[in-house]
Amino acid sequence: MAGKRDLTRLHAERMLGPDDLASAAQRLMPDLDGLPEVSQGTAKVSRERMSRWWEKSGAKPDLRKILLDSVTDDVTAYQGNIENAIGFLRLPIGIAGPLRVNGLAAKGDFLIPLATTEAALVASYHRGCRVLTSAGGCSTLVLYENVNRAPAFVFKTTSEACQFVVWAMSMFEEFERIAATTTSHGKLVDIGCTVEGNHVYLNFEFTTGDASGQNMVTLATQAICDQIMATAPVTPLRFYVESNLSGDKKASARAYHSTRGKKVTAEAIIPAELVAKLLHTTPKAMVEYWQMSAIGGVLSGTIGVHGHFANGLAALYLATGQDAACVAESATGVTRFEVTEDGNLYATVTLPGIMIGTVGGGTGLPSQKACLELMGLAGAGKARALSEVCAALLLAGELSIIAALCAGHFSRAHRKLARTGKS
Amino acid sequence: MAGKRDLTRLHAERMLGPDDLASAAQRLMPDLDGLPEVSQGTAKVSRERMSRWWEKSGAKPDLRKILLDSVTDDVTAYQGNIENAIGFLRLPIGIAGPLRVNGLAAKGDFLIPLATTEAALVASYHRGCRVLTSAGGCSTLVLYENVNRAPAFVFKTTSEACQFVVWAMSMFEEFERIAATTTSHGKLVDIGCTVEGNHVYLNFEFTTGDASGQNMVTLATQAICDQIMATAPVTPLRFYVESNLSGDKKASARAYHSTRGKKVTAEAIIPAELVAKLLHTTPKAMVEYWQMSAIGGVLSGTIGVHGHFANGLAALYLATGQDAACVAESATGVTRFEVTEDGNLYATVTLPGIMIGTVGGGTGLPSQKACLELMGLAGAGKARALSEVCAALLLAGELSIIAALCAGHFSRAHRKLARTGKS
Amino acid sequence: MAGKRDLTRLHAERMLGPDDLASAAQRLMPDLDGLPEVSQGTAKVSRERMSRWWEKSGAKPDLRKILLDSVTDDVTAYQGNIENAIGFLRLPIGIAGPLRVNGLAAKGDFLIPLATTEAALVASYHRGCRVLTSAGGCSTLVLYENVNRAPAFVFKTTSEACQFVVWAMSMFEEFERIAATTTSHGKLVDIGCTVEGNHVYLNFEFTTGDASGQNMVTLATQAICDQIMATAPVTPLRFYVESNLSGDKKASARAYHSTRGKKVTAEAIIPAELVAKLLHTTPKAMVEYWQMSAIGGVLSGTIGVHGHFANGLAALYLATGQDAACVAESATGVTRFEVTEDGNLYATVTLPGIMIGTVGGGTGLPSQKACLELMGLAGAGKARALSEVCAALLLAGELSIIAALCAGHFSRAHRKLARTGKS
Amino acid sequence: MAGKRDLTRLHAERMLGPDDLASAAQRLMPDLDGLPEVSQGTAKVSRERMSRWWEKSGAKPDLRKILLDSVTDDVTAYQGNIENAIGFLRLPIGIAGPLRVNGLAAKGDFLIPLATTEAALVASYHRGCRVLTSAGGCSTLVLYENVNRAPAFVFKTTSEACQFVVWAMSMFEEFERIAATTTSHGKLVDIGCTVEGNHVYLNFEFTTGDASGQNMVTLATQAICDQIMATAPVTPLRFYVESNLSGDKKASARAYHSTRGKKVTAEAIIPAELVAKLLHTTPKAMVEYWQMSAIGGVLSGTIGVHGHFANGLAALYLATGQDAACVAESATGVTRFEVTEDGNLYATVTLPGIMIGTVGGGTGLPSQKACLELMGLAGAGKARALSEVCAALLLAGELSIIAALCAGHFSRAHRKLARTGKS
Repeated sequence: MAGKRDLTRLHAERMLGPDDLASAAQRLMPDLDGLPEVSQGTAKVSRERMSRWWEKSGAKPDLRKILLDSVTDDVTAYQGNIENAIGFLRLPIGIAGPLRVNGLAAKGDFLIPLATTEAALVASYHRGCRVLTSAGGCSTLVLYENVNRAPAFVFKTTSEACQFVVWAMSMFEEFERIAATTTSHGKLVDIGCTVEGNHVYLNFEFTTGDASGQNMVTLATQAICDQIMATAPVTPLRFYVESNLSGDKKASARAYHSTRGKKVTAEAIIPAELVAKLLHTTPKAMVEYWQMSAIGGVLSGTIGVHGHFANGLAALYLATGQDAACVAESATGVTRFEVTEDGNLYATVTLPGIMIGTVGGGTGLPSQKACLELMGLAGAGKARALSEVCAALLLAGELSIIAALCAGHFSRAHRKLARTGKS
Repeated sequence: MAGKRDLTRLHAERMLGPDDLASAAQRLMPDLDGLPEVSQGTAKVSRERMSRWWEKSGAKPDLRKILLDSVTDDVTAYQGNIENAIGFLRLPIGIAGPLRVNGLAAKGDFLIPLATTEAALVASYHRGCRVLTSAGGCSTLVLYENVNRAPAFVFKTTSEACQFVVWAMSMFEEFERIAATTTSHGKLVDIGCTVEGNHVYLNFEFTTGDASGQNMVTLATQAICDQIMATAPVTPLRFYVESNLSGDKKASARAYHSTRGKKVTAEAIIPAELVAKLLHTTPKAMVEYWQMSAIGGVLSGTIGVHGHFANGLAALYLATGQDAACVAESATGVTRFEVTEDGNLYATVTLPGIMIGTVGGGTGLPSQKACLELMGLAGAGKARALSEVCAALLLAGELSIIAALCAGHFSRAHRKLARTGKS
Repeated sequence: MAGKRDLTRLHAERMLGPDDLASAAQRLMPDLDGLPEVSQGTAKVSRERMSRWWEKSGAKPDLRKILLDSVTDDVTAYQGNIENAIGFLRLPIGIAGPLRVNGLAAKGDFLIPLATTEAALVASYHRGCRVLTSAGGCSTLVLYENVNRAPAFVFKTTSEACQFVVWAMSMFEEFERIAATTTSHGKLVDIGCTVEGNHVYLNFEFTTGDASGQNMVTLATQAICDQIMATAPVTPLRFYVESNLSGDKKASARAYHSTRGKKVTAEAIIPAELVAKLLHTTPKAMVEYWQMSAIGGVLSGTIGVHGHFANGLAALYLATGQDAACVAESATGVTRFEVTEDGNLYATVTLPGIMIGTVGGGTGLPSQKACLELMGLAGAGKARALSEVCAALLLAGELSIIAALCAGHFSRAHRKLARTGKS
Repeated sequence: MAGKRDLTRLHAERMLGPDDLASAAQRLMPDLDGLPEVSQGTAKVSRERMSRWWEKSGAKPDLRKILLDSVTDDVTAYQGNIENAIGFLRLPIGIAGPLRVNGLAAKGDFLIPLATTEAALVASYHRGCRVLTSAGGCSTLVLYENVNRAPAFVFKTTSEACQFVVWAMSMFEEFERIAATTTSHGKLVDIGCTVEGNHVYLNFEFTTGDASGQNMVTLATQAICDQIMATAPVTPLRFYVESNLSGDKKASARAYHSTRGKKVTAEAIIPAELVAKLLHTTPKAMVEYWQMSAIGGVLSGTIGVHGHFANGLAALYLATGQDAACVAESATGVTRFEVTEDGNLYATVTLPGIMIGTVGGGTGLPSQKACLELMGLAGAGKARALSEVCAALLLAGELSIIAALCAGHFSRAHRKLARTGKS
């Protein structure tokens, strides 16, 4: 009778394959023979430079044809969004909606472009949109907004660290002023503070206008830190402009206590008849699934409990020029379903911090901007509305997947859509 | 003297904007007037259907031009990867490398295509690749591989639940056989089990060949569940093919105890002279930063501790046709830096579970496949090698960002690259 | 308008009190003047030695009277459970129950001694016991048992680490044999393995008979490690008998994936009339509270979701001679309440790992053993039964506190009981 | 070749023992036959009542002798700290120290009483105290203090929830006034707010003088909530005085973002010669262990990273009359070790929230008060000093255990001390 040790061993042996241990070890050794040249790299984007790269690389011409030559318009628009450019990736866009959104900032019926290569994703969100729209739409509002940068300062002792904190907390207006010299859109709104032994982590919190704002807050924080190093009565031994406490690019429990991006919630009440007609199940069955899945999430050690925020979030982030890596930090939050007193379905999602903007980053690139324009949400003054539409979309996705899982349609839908036209 | 209550209030009031509370509330109400039509949706991808959509949508022609008309080749290749297709998104691709990889499966110098719209990302990974390659490359190997699906079964009592477990654990060979009827690439390798009161979560673990394999394991698990419902001596009251315990599409602590995807590690020793020459800092300074940042990660409540796995992961996932939403679950793990006895830098990353494949999903689409071919990693037999290259890339990214943060170059690099050519 | 920075500053200033920063800093400096003598310490427990300590310490005689002289019986019984003994603490014991337990190991009506100094604790658990007993008792069973020790091994490279793993997994029978030379009660049952770069964490899993077993598994693991260091084909650079991966003495997410101690579940169905009569509320109201509180737990970032396991656990651990520090790791798990089809209350708790025994540790000390005997659960052969009674007790506590919170009685009960007789 | 399924099955079968499944199921059924009487319970503590209980219980007279008759002094002192009292538990007390503490509030050489039944615990902390004292003592200070209660309010819609928040945040002064009517020691200092769909969690933060203060903040919060229900412009559908968001009695990630109890840090620099002489190892070896163990903690999914805070905390909490169940929430935090520029050991611990007081709870009971007096820390005005001594003690424990683990003495010490005098 055996346990997981046997599986571990079997696995390790399979990984090694035909190699014996010694030759496997040999294979893993650093090898300084015939090192390839690694270029300095370039931030310049031009068709000429790209062509030169392809020639020099010796790659097969048909790859170049697909990645570069099939794109015939002006490529210089991408400068400032890529380095070492060699071509372009193509992702298909599908439409979910119209989704009726009753938000403080977003009000109306929205067509939502989603960029993905995964079968069934758009279909599932589209189905959820149909349900929400049929119910008169989704209520949603931004609860808080704030983008942070968390530098760390190292001192000789805790005592010095605390003296520093007393001083730093008194300098808010000065820091605010310095931040303002680096950006006209960003504004310092508060400072948090975490002392761990002789380390001090400050958490600078900014509003960033309609930009996602990560670079903006980095530059402002750098300027503040430079001033701190020049003027603090207790000079830190050293400092780092980011300490890994900000939650940047990773799921973290701090999301629930200190917003990063937009905190946004969406809710709707779906009449039982709509649940039956469009989702082929009942509010009670959906709530039973939700309860079990909430505990499933808890047992698996997720941060928050929800179904598949990452799916809709990644597809919308891509289509609208957001930073796709921020899916890692933004795809967390809480979904909650309840049966109302009169037997309908109450459904809500709350996202503690989505990093999202309608200016800056990739939002101005041709196809990304076209997607924002299709939603009527391009440019200044639209970031909160986009956040609200995003939350509404994610609620649509939770409705659809939970219905599929409790009605037993989940695997069938995937089989059908993934294999369509593939025969 | 005030606290966070004032900020909360200020914020709430700003969210509401000029509206008073009553009119804001009104705005959020469901609204059944003039509901738009929501189409049934379609899985069919053809230029004709897309054209029809644009005509019907009434969207501005210049959007169509960008999203659809600029793509002139065959669009039917995308069928099975999108629904409600209306056009295409374009992402620029930059190259990092060549990166010398000394892996069990991947051995050689790899050019790594990264799709992103974020300034400085490719430049940073490229710099890390230069360091690794100059040091003779990065050692890497896949430690484990496994894709899971976790159905839940509901019983009347815990007692029934336990009887069910005893039975289910004895049925492994039968379940293995059933799984094999649904897929020739996937293979059931083990079953885990979690009892919570009268709920039983089973965790079916599969190998999935060279596919990421999510659909494959869903279909196999569905077939096993159907058989369970038909034959279990204690019939569950109900079941769900996925319970939210699998970790699918979200960061979870279970990643460290039960792999989902490929568990892979990469390491290198970087001579101090290379650190000085290419990264402008020292092994000691990088290790000091790493230590502080590891505690920063712990204090922020992340799962694992690392710098910015999500950046490289998202860009590589996109370029190679992986499921971008899986960034949420895959971008977790551990980075560790140490100074060696002789003063050099030991650096390692371990990813507990990256969802990655070289067949299926988006890997066969034109530009995605071209990227895989550029790496020499397209098609069957290449998934482990791609995993190893992925881990090596993420190590490159950790080296580069940590060096930038401890040398004080982080914000400067972002300023420079994000503003290049934007004037 | 201000934020948390003002509160931080106010706070820091108040901490410093009348001191200015400089004199506060001075106060925190190390001070080598007049260092006191610190004795070698002693493991010997005798009245004579304790008396000598009191004489030498110069402490007030009335303290000695309370801590030492009031205890008149043989003190040598405590040798092996304390060092530097100087006297005894007295904790009051209250009784909850009888609690009817329908377990696989525990079957009958149990009087449960609880040691605590917190008002309302015993009253609350007692009330829960009354509810469970009135419903015909609580079903409970141990689902798994296992105590682990997790040594770490450090290698030069990942490659060596992996070679080591392949070897170690093949040595199970040998390790089992070595473990058996150190203990007749403990038995090695499996080995888990976690590779992180060039570090290997092994997880040795043991059954430990009726002992909690922490020392037993430490000694067995030490013996195995000594043998590993002597015979491994790839000798580790160094090793540590415990790596902090075991979960020893702290709440950890690994509890849900790898048991430490006993995994045990308890459940009951409480008729609605009993809920009304004894708890003054309804199943529906209790389930509504439970749902909200489960999300409250998720938002606060707890591991598992429950009400107050630590209260009953600490009181029972103390009364029965368990290691009180293990409350930190054992007080985690899941509580779940549902309304049944016929309107009654389904309630369950699942504890992933309680460290508990009926032999060894403090279980043989006079008053602790008396408590175990009062339950009929002293000595060999009783550990599983004690675990089941423990789970049933915690379920009682969850019923009582949730009822109090949803009926609005929580603060009233605390006010009444904490102030009783204090006037 | 098998996996964990076989172990699960083996285990399940062993749990069932000789029973077949059907009879095991039968055993777990509720049983209404011959239900025992469950008394109403009593808060009264008198020798007469306890005697009556023993007579009625029919328990063996020798148990009564140990638990009740061996205690001859006045038992009424325990009234208000226990219900259903039947006797007393005895725990041995050992002394660690003198520990030199250089704190803002605590300054001097402290003898620290620890109540435990675990071998080696006192010896290990005592050893750590010797190291700290020999180095001139431990610097320590309270960084923040705050005890919270987190009621939840349920609304019909998110919109109503947000209107409520705007109102509640404006009522701080009124809430402060109401709180002041319930307590003269506690003071409301801030309010936090978390909106999740139509649920609002408020977090009332108080200072509580020298009491741990849990009951105090419950009563104050209840009074505020009663007023809210009476006067809020949007009346909640229902409310709960505690929502499970406060972190009460369980380890939670929120501890790092919002203090509960005292946030306190301690640090010391230990000269390398002292490390060699007293701990038989080197600063470098200890830091190597610490690094590995920090990652070990991260991989196991703990909240914070440290060694064994729970050991010293439980023993000190018990000896000084704290709430032992609070070990679950307080035993979390960060330990950090570094080698200083001149080769010595920098060591620090930071506890984000220890629940501790010198008045109220069990602090006034005879033996607990005697322990506080032995430290010179009984009664009003001493809570911060006790917190600082607590942090210093925990640092001593981290030094000792890490030294033992990296010098290979850990298992030897446990073997020796646990078996002393047991032959």
